[in-house]
Amino acid sequence: MAVGTDADANTASTDESAETVTATVIGGSGFTGGELLRLLAGHPNVELAEVTSRSKAGKSVGSVHPPLRGADLRFTEPDDLESVDVLFAATPHGVSMGRVDEFFEIADTVVDLSADFRLESEEQYDEWYDGHDAPEYLEKAEYALPEINRENLDGADLIAGGGCNATATILGLYPLFEHDILDGGEQVVVDVKVGSSEGGAGGGEASSHPERSGVVRPYAPTGHRHEAEIEQFLGTSVAFTCHAVDMVRGASATSHVFPSSPVSKGDLWQAYRGCYEDEPFVRMAAGGSGVYRYPEPKSVAGTNVAEVGFELDPSNKRVVVFSAIDNMMKGSAGQAVHAANVALGFEETAGLEFTGLHPVGAP
Amino acid sequence: MAVGTDADANTASTDESAETVTATVIGGSGFTGGELLRLLAGHPNVELAEVTSRSKAGKSVGSVHPPLRGADLRFTEPDDLESVDVLFAATPHGVSMGRVDEFFEIADTVVDLSADFRLESEEQYDEWYDGHDAPEYLEKAEYALPEINRENLDGADLIAGGGCNATATILGLYPLFEHDILDGGEQVVVDVKVGSSEGGAGGGEASSHPERSGVVRPYAPTGHRHEAEIEQFLGTSVAFTCHAVDMVRGASATSHVFPSSPVSKGDLWQAYRGCYEDEPFVRMAAGGSGVYRYPEPKSVAGTNVAEVGFELDPSNKRVVVFSAIDNMMKGSAGQAVHAANVALGFEETAGLEFTGLHPVGAP
Amino acid sequence: MAVGTDADANTASTDESAETVTATVIGGSGFTGGELLRLLAGHPNVELAEVTSRSKAGKSVGSVHPPLRGADLRFTEPDDLESVDVLFAATPHGVSMGRVDEFFEIADTVVDLSADFRLESEEQYDEWYDGHDAPEYLEKAEYALPEINRENLDGADLIAGGGCNATATILGLYPLFEHDILDGGEQVVVDVKVGSSEGGAGGGEASSHPERSGVVRPYAPTGHRHEAEIEQFLGTSVAFTCHAVDMVRGASATSHVFPSSPVSKGDLWQAYRGCYEDEPFVRMAAGGSGVYRYPEPKSVAGTNVAEVGFELDPSNKRVVVFSAIDNMMKGSAGQAVHAANVALGFEETAGLEFTGLHPVGAP
Amino acid sequence: MAVGTDADANTASTDESAETVTATVIGGSGFTGGELLRLLAGHPNVELAEVTSRSKAGKSVGSVHPPLRGADLRFTEPDDLESVDVLFAATPHGVSMGRVDEFFEIADTVVDLSADFRLESEEQYDEWYDGHDAPEYLEKAEYALPEINRENLDGADLIAGGGCNATATILGLYPLFEHDILDGGEQVVVDVKVGSSEGGAGGGEASSHPERSGVVRPYAPTGHRHEAEIEQFLGTSVAFTCHAVDMVRGASATSHVFPSSPVSKGDLWQAYRGCYEDEPFVRMAAGGSGVYRYPEPKSVAGTNVAEVGFELDPSNKRVVVFSAIDNMMKGSAGQAVHAANVALGFEETAGLEFTGLHPVGAP
Repeated sequence: MAVGTDADANTASTDESAETVTATVIGGSGFTGGELLRLLAGHPNVELAEVTSRSKAGKSVGSVHPPLRGADLRFTEPDDLESVDVLFAATPHGVSMGRVDEFFEIADTVVDLSADFRLESEEQYDEWYDGHDAPEYLEKAEYALPEINRENLDGADLIAGGGCNATATILGLYPLFEHDILDGGEQVVVDVKVGSSEGGAGGGEASSHPERSGVVRPYAPTGHRHEAEIEQFLGTSVAFTCHAVDMVRGASATSHVFPSSPVSKGDLWQAYRGCYEDEPFVRMAAGGSGVYRYPEPKSVAGTNVAEVGFELDPSNKRVVVFSAIDNMMKGSAGQAVHAANVALGFEETAGLEFTGLHPVGAP
Repeated sequence: MAVGTDADANTASTDESAETVTATVIGGSGFTGGELLRLLAGHPNVELAEVTSRSKAGKSVGSVHPPLRGADLRFTEPDDLESVDVLFAATPHGVSMGRVDEFFEIADTVVDLSADFRLESEEQYDEWYDGHDAPEYLEKAEYALPEINRENLDGADLIAGGGCNATATILGLYPLFEHDILDGGEQVVVDVKVGSSEGGAGGGEASSHPERSGVVRPYAPTGHRHEAEIEQFLGTSVAFTCHAVDMVRGASATSHVFPSSPVSKGDLWQAYRGCYEDEPFVRMAAGGSGVYRYPEPKSVAGTNVAEVGFELDPSNKRVVVFSAIDNMMKGSAGQAVHAANVALGFEETAGLEFTGLHPVGAP
Repeated sequence: MAVGTDADANTASTDESAETVTATVIGGSGFTGGELLRLLAGHPNVELAEVTSRSKAGKSVGSVHPPLRGADLRFTEPDDLESVDVLFAATPHGVSMGRVDEFFEIADTVVDLSADFRLESEEQYDEWYDGHDAPEYLEKAEYALPEINRENLDGADLIAGGGCNATATILGLYPLFEHDILDGGEQVVVDVKVGSSEGGAGGGEASSHPERSGVVRPYAPTGHRHEAEIEQFLGTSVAFTCHAVDMVRGASATSHVFPSSPVSKGDLWQAYRGCYEDEPFVRMAAGGSGVYRYPEPKSVAGTNVAEVGFELDPSNKRVVVFSAIDNMMKGSAGQAVHAANVALGFEETAGLEFTGLHPVGAP
Repeated sequence: MAVGTDADANTASTDESAETVTATVIGGSGFTGGELLRLLAGHPNVELAEVTSRSKAGKSVGSVHPPLRGADLRFTEPDDLESVDVLFAATPHGVSMGRVDEFFEIADTVVDLSADFRLESEEQYDEWYDGHDAPEYLEKAEYALPEINRENLDGADLIAGGGCNATATILGLYPLFEHDILDGGEQVVVDVKVGSSEGGAGGGEASSHPERSGVVRPYAPTGHRHEAEIEQFLGTSVAFTCHAVDMVRGASATSHVFPSSPVSKGDLWQAYRGCYEDEPFVRMAAGGSGVYRYPEPKSVAGTNVAEVGFELDPSNKRVVVFSAIDNMMKGSAGQAVHAANVALGFEETAGLEFTGLHPVGAP
């Protein structure tokens, strides 16, 4: 590779040819499970041991996930699991909290992609979810975003993947709070657009192609559960609304904020560069010329990159912040692998090198 | 027709078999020009006299607009126009202001679909556009939204079509101001998603299919010209941002407002019903069950209907307002025909009866 | 309406203000049921009596089909039906054959949109379907395509709607057989592309948005049931393959035929004009300039029009025939209403006047 | 990487850590040029020297191709090129034939992605294109498909990239001719569906999003230039028709063939396995269960893989062959890199390891 990219800049201290760990994926037939498989199959430090799926046990993973057609790997029943170094759980919300003891019996490190360990307290689970079965693990869990939690992820045993909409929102707004452009008392409005893969592989009438195709459909216009994560990490509540739009992969958050003191574009660049210039998976896109001036889900489809950008509206004293991710990657499986790389001391970008496609349609 | 619809309720006092007027369309080869042709060709009170297009003169309208393939009508040069009762101008911004004297020499009523007569004062055109060539007409022009301007449209000579994004926004927010839920001092954030037809038939790199397909692309994130119209009719400035999304027809506005006094769902229903229950082209969609709970551009594609709805978020004291239109119809050509129907005393729904399709893809 | 269209040319002899008939729709919550409702609600000679749906009984039709939100109509249980003039059955294949006696007890005319009465003999149902429960009705049933069966439809009691892919194919190829350009001994290859609405409202994994979006997916590559209809009406078997593509509405058939004697473009035009020039719902599109030179599903979306065209390839002695329909309209509900209009002596185009949209996305 | 894939099986004899060559891309601002850049930037044996673009000279490649935003690389004027080992030309048809002498002055190996060196004789260029300016190079050029031309590519100086539609068609049909299931005398009908990226970055009215979105549009229904390539390599003319469908990347060929002697599924599997079982970039998909039973462009989007499959229709003695590629990859830039890998003795899969995404929308 002759061309230097941002991804090269990071983590020079780790050893690429380090050890190899064994890994098991629980729930490998769903969308995020398949994405994990794809990433781990190409990961230089990971050897896949087992992939479980109760509904697809016995079938080849390639029959469900076409990109894995060539892989010699079959789904197994999620019982009698063999011991491995790392266990990735890609099960629906509520499953991992009931099996976490079992997970730690067979693995030293557990990476959970559901919502089960994202929040810090049992009270939050009472408020936003249906309570929690294993609250003793909440303090132990580390949120999987290295950009805001790298130090704690180093050596972590239990990693909690963030919500995709929360991830996009937090990455967009974090520098404004970190650099005191916002202090938490201001109004923040977040309008998110998401693709259909967010709904998972199950589907239903609303996500059938005839009903879902071409939509701009409000969903969770108020009370979206990801508000809890955003508040937890930014320290402020946000006015949050989601819309389903016609793409499969992608989450795009547009945040409107109103700083109490005047800010300049220079202030904003300083804040964003200060937070992200050494990050291997954050790319700034704020203005410029041509077709692609701001973050777009298309530009990051299939990658672990978050594009972040902003525009300043002096007339109404507003900063508009844009952030775009692939909800399956930076918003889920890619984030999990990135966090595991940090936790296990691997090259941060290992297994996550894909840089995306241009042009690409509705990924 | 056996099933009563909202559209039946209106304007019983007009006479359906009234007179027939002659009409000319200036700029008939563009998207809004084609839409106008389609509507006027099916209008019971309109006889099409001429359709002009400098670039397509001599060609049949059906060669450009497939739905009109059966029509025996050809584009003419836009010179030496014959006298008609009504002239519709579907030309780019800036053309009509230079030809409006000429238009009134051949027609008693002029309906302009561009931005040239939307704003009330020359100062606004200096601020938001490149000035104005015929400011003496601004006072005379009537904004084409009957829902907020019906009385003034009755008998109007010069009708100014509204902007599509402004139309969606105004129809969503108007009842809140009209019923004093907002007084103009509060923060209003508007996030609009629009289809590619808004860019017109010309196209360019950004609207080529490979680049435009599947996008969630911020455009005009600050300083959008439609803010001027919105401010003019609502009496308050708004924080306004647009996104291009993957559909051809449609504009969807999500407005976040924060009333200074507490409101209930009942208050909101009272406001919206008070404004719209007799309107033939506004349909409420606010909650309920099933797939379609809120306004969606899909649901109104091809129609002159605006769907309007809302949700109340008590926790952050916010009302989220949704409004969806077909930008080519309620946002342009349909609005123009509706306003002309009011101005000329025709049945308001004449020529605008199409109720839409289900299911439909990305219209 | 000032502009003459093809649709005006037809059926001058019928009386527009004729009688009004009462109608019931069985199975109104599905896609074709909803389309029927939309058409019948706007039909000048039809008064809707009942709309049944076992799963949605009690709900308003507008809660399922957004374009009917304004209609004051609720689904009823499909039992104890009141007597009406016409009954439309939009139920899954196999239902009508079991209830046809009951249907005729309450209605004089039955229009069935399923496959239950399309084929002429019990033997065909044994071969292509799972046999037939009421073979005594097969001889009585008339295929719903007026273009090839108008005389028999006049006064028909039992009307059998054609399959959407068969309809597109038959309309494309019929003139070649009728004008002896083909005699039935030649190879005919038909490649059909269809939208997702063909799969109905139920859905499943394959028709979920993430899996169905963006596809070019072979389905029924051999042995498609519509081959039976095509053979029945054209008198020859065809090599027939379908592909699902990314649209909701539409079926497009490309047929490759190899006449045993040389043909000219003039011969082809003579054949197609001879069959279709007076047809209100067939529109030729064969060459010319501009973007739209051949039939496209986009151009007919929402209409009852079939676009038909062809190209001649002298080098390999092939005629390529293109035909495009909206599978929900000309391929199902629109065809049924058209046939009912013929059977009942109404204006053929009654209720079917919508001419389509331009531009339009993926309808 | 722990999971074995087909891609691992190949070319064990080459030395992965071989040499590194320098490379220049001529015409890097177009779609195929950008794809080449993406692949070469990640290629272990290639160091990018220059990327030219007359229209974008001086701009960063990332401003045009978002996935390369992090790369420190700018477009240069295509004059005064420095000497390199390999030159890739991604210019429009007709450019390379005029500059090929110049290309060989600065590079030992030239890989041309246009049509300029695909055909073997000047006569073919006279018939299918506008003649040829440098016919003396035609004999020297090697067609870039290793699956049918690997031996000749080894050490080749001038490599001619195949047409995307031709590539899909040839890979689908080649085993039938190679294994004597067809002998060239039978009728072959090929129906291709392609994405909008095939039209390149320039665009025009027909490829603008409003007109191109949602289409099933016949283009080049007869006389498509890729017929020449197909005939050259398969030894038979084909009846060939293309359709534009709503995706950006992808070409899918469905070929209908009628063997003169009866064939079984076993015969077909023997033919396809015989040709492709050791190929790193051909994947069979022929039946099975689940959603993905046959080749689909979605399944190979972003990859250099061709999916190939078939179905046997005993009733009309037909074999239906399906083949799907990413037109930008296996149909253009990926094929070029693959062929260059063979020519230069690199690992065949070097730089081409991406395995695709699931789910993915309309790539």
